Amino acid sequence: MDSADCPLCRDEGLDILWRDARCRVARVAHPDYPGYCQVLWDAHVREWTDLAPADRTHCLAVVSVVEEVLRTLLVPDKINLAALGNQVPHLHWHVIARFRDDAHWPDPIWAPRRREGLLRSLDRARLVRELEAGLGATGTSTP
Amino acid sequence: MDSADCPLCRDEGLDILWRDARCRVARVAHPDYPGYCQVLWDAHVREWTDLAPADRTHCLAVVSVVEEVLRTLLVPDKINLAALGNQVPHLHWHVIARFRDDAHWPDPIWAPRRREGLLRSLDRARLVRELEAGLGATGTSTP
Repeated sequence: MDSADCPLCRDEGLDILWRDARCRVARVAHPDYPGYCQVLWDAHVREWTDLAPADRTHCLAVVSVVEEVLRTLLVPDKINLAALGNQVPHLHWHVIARFRDDAHWPDPIWAPRRREGLLRSLDRARLVRELEAGLGATGTSTP
Repeated sequence: MDSADCPLCRDEGLDILWRDARCRVARVAHPDYPGYCQVLWDAHVREWTDLAPADRTHCLAVVSVVEEVLRTLLVPDKINLAALGNQVPHLHWHVIARFRDDAHWPDPIWAPRRREGLLRSLDRARLVRELEAGLGATGTSTP
């Protein structure tokens, strides 16, 4: 998959919560996981170690703030982090708030569903506000 | 789960390839994935963001070298990274070399198996040698 075919090279269909000059934070519309965000690196980079060290540091700092925001807003039993990309080989991190009574616990969300999970609500405006508190307002560092 | 019950607080049953004063690299004995390593943080820390920033940097530097070593030795179609910990809430990173003809492709390895995957061999001694080349010899920074 090259950049022209890549859904993560465009914003179409993505719910972008925050962005800077290098990456975006999107909310994933997953029916079981309201506390599911992704950090999407802007450049069409395949593997984590294809990023220059300074970009790795920046990317992980954003992932870490997303994790902290989800911990603050939802107090989950666990956060799951993953950079997979088998289907869309454009670097993106999954940051998922997990609960003991969610649909797949204790398995990863890619395992078969175990139950009708209990859903928590998470207000989009609060999520954006907390991300901006942790990362700075969207646009402030955008070229 | 506290530290006394935690399997990752001990080395028992783990195939440790490399260690320093803060973390270990272990090989996972997975029948489908010879190129499957874990970076195990030594302290019984639950979440990524429970690590101090300097420890995050160190941990990710080790994860990155493990990824690079697997890329060098196996030339996989993709690397999968994940820190989940729902079952063992002690910080550990999965670093998995994936191939288009492996048992779960293009799904994560936690999804249902799709096929009898093709196996690559990966010699343990070569893996240790490359890790030491990237990270320094085991023991050199151990207290």
